[in-house]
Amino acid sequence: MLRVGYPAAISADFLSGFPEGIELIPLADPLDHDVEIDVWLPDPYPTVSLRIAPRLRGVKLVLSLMAGTEWIPGAMGPHVTICNARGAHSTSTAEWTLTAILAMLKHLPFFHDVQRDGLWKRRFEASANYAKITGDTRKLHPPVMLEELTAKRVLMVGHGSIGQEIERLLEPFRVQMTRVTRTARVEPKVHALSELDSLLPQAEIVILILPLNDESRNLIGSRQLALMPQGALLVNAARGPIVNTDALVEALRSGHIRAALDVTEPEPLPEGHPLWSCPNVLITPHVAGSTPQFAVNSLATALGELRRFMAGEPLENAVQIAI
Amino acid sequence: MLRVGYPAAISADFLSGFPEGIELIPLADPLDHDVEIDVWLPDPYPTVSLRIAPRLRGVKLVLSLMAGTEWIPGAMGPHVTICNARGAHSTSTAEWTLTAILAMLKHLPFFHDVQRDGLWKRRFEASANYAKITGDTRKLHPPVMLEELTAKRVLMVGHGSIGQEIERLLEPFRVQMTRVTRTARVEPKVHALSELDSLLPQAEIVILILPLNDESRNLIGSRQLALMPQGALLVNAARGPIVNTDALVEALRSGHIRAALDVTEPEPLPEGHPLWSCPNVLITPHVAGSTPQFAVNSLATALGELRRFMAGEPLENAVQIAI
Repeated sequence: MLRVGYPAAISADFLSGFPEGIELIPLADPLDHDVEIDVWLPDPYPTVSLRIAPRLRGVKLVLSLMAGTEWIPGAMGPHVTICNARGAHSTSTAEWTLTAILAMLKHLPFFHDVQRDGLWKRRFEASANYAKITGDTRKLHPPVMLEELTAKRVLMVGHGSIGQEIERLLEPFRVQMTRVTRTARVEPKVHALSELDSLLPQAEIVILILPLNDESRNLIGSRQLALMPQGALLVNAARGPIVNTDALVEALRSGHIRAALDVTEPEPLPEGHPLWSCPNVLITPHVAGSTPQFAVNSLATALGELRRFMAGEPLENAVQIAI
Repeated sequence: MLRVGYPAAISADFLSGFPEGIELIPLADPLDHDVEIDVWLPDPYPTVSLRIAPRLRGVKLVLSLMAGTEWIPGAMGPHVTICNARGAHSTSTAEWTLTAILAMLKHLPFFHDVQRDGLWKRRFEASANYAKITGDTRKLHPPVMLEELTAKRVLMVGHGSIGQEIERLLEPFRVQMTRVTRTARVEPKVHALSELDSLLPQAEIVILILPLNDESRNLIGSRQLALMPQGALLVNAARGPIVNTDALVEALRSGHIRAALDVTEPEPLPEGHPLWSCPNVLITPHVAGSTPQFAVNSLATALGELRRFMAGEPLENAVQIAI
């Protein structure tokens, strides 16, 4: 009988769709004894799973409930197959990305302060705020207080299932979309990562939605941030280490760019870290995927992969094949 | 020669597209003498225009730069034709509406406070916040911290050019859309305002985007707010007096509903007004339309109407015909 280990924190109610012929083994945290299992569903929190991993014996297949799996090969070695939950978080993460973009273009952090202070008249400071951020000092009447997403130039770095979903949500806004991935493609037109620096000066919005690996670590540093135009918005919905934090803090403090971040380096971002108090930044504490649909969708994705594994069919979301 | 009065606050640069054969007359605020004009472009701020209106003589046509024109008939009487800037603000106001909905579903006001306090660990309070607002107390793992717009049930009250644009932006989210206007229609299916109370109990999001008039004033009172389900979101992108403010404050304080408001009654909302400090409300100080494109688009709309007027062609956006 196939032994499937899963996080004890997940209520067994949510596993009712799993097939007969398997033994479901809840894995508590901390785990005080070794456990023999064939298939492992790691806890969505890597810190929890990294405590549990050394106790596991006989694992052949890891079914991650997350899109990012960068911590698993190091913890489990090359002799396991690893599948991610491709697609399961596309909706929630893509929605967060659009929310973050719109919140920054509509200057919601500024207006949140206006609301907290209860001072309607502070609306008249909004146009100076807009001009300072964007560098647009035309004297329009009525004064400009916020921006439109429609027709903006967007540079998307990464174009997997989440990136494609972001592009779908952006469609009604008729943005001018430029795509960059590890290797160039023709249909749709995608540029190679080596072209990134030449594309940044045209980007009003840069969206990072690529996996963390040796090539993407520190991809965005001082040089890349300086290449972005005045007031451009950097959105990181991927992984913190893709951006050099010191360079980001400096670029934000200088007023050159804006940023919206669901991920940071380090993470958690410690109390008193300079990033917290930078101007023109929106930070959410790695919550983009945490919707009610998340838990349900990612388990359904893992279940589909488990059925294929048991039937000897090809796996759909393998990111590492056991050697 | 046709005399066209316009707000002196608008730079003449932006009127360069206006046709020859007219005399452009800047109207300062305050206006200390009577002025004879044929066509009036009122200042976008009604308070300014209401000071200027009594000084104007001979006005035949008013070309509003705004979508809402409810203050003009009372100020100018029945012997002028009034056109609004239909369509010119559709993009900006529709974008604000989507922004406000997403910001509330992603609990940005909560996370804004987390960021201000610089306490990453407060993320763990997000799931209690979510459960309290929505009433969803299922124990999911990982915990639910924010919501998805995808597949939500939306009730749109009003379906003019801005409402239709909101619906277009919502399309990728596959929401379940129900529409209500003054009179029922068949294609697309639109319910009559008289059916509103029977539709509210199914609505997770209620968007108000209808003109202010005798029928819509106080449309949303205690009874309507009570009919909305727990945690439902009321979005007012129309006019403040469509919602009864006392009833709204009470419904927010009870925790029954949420609201996102770009307009309030009264307006400006005074310092110390209870609405400022209600829970689960996002307030922006009537700024939704104030984008760089706004001034340009509304002048272009007015210019089109002016050309038709001069050519004796039918006007496209008349909301009152001179008697």
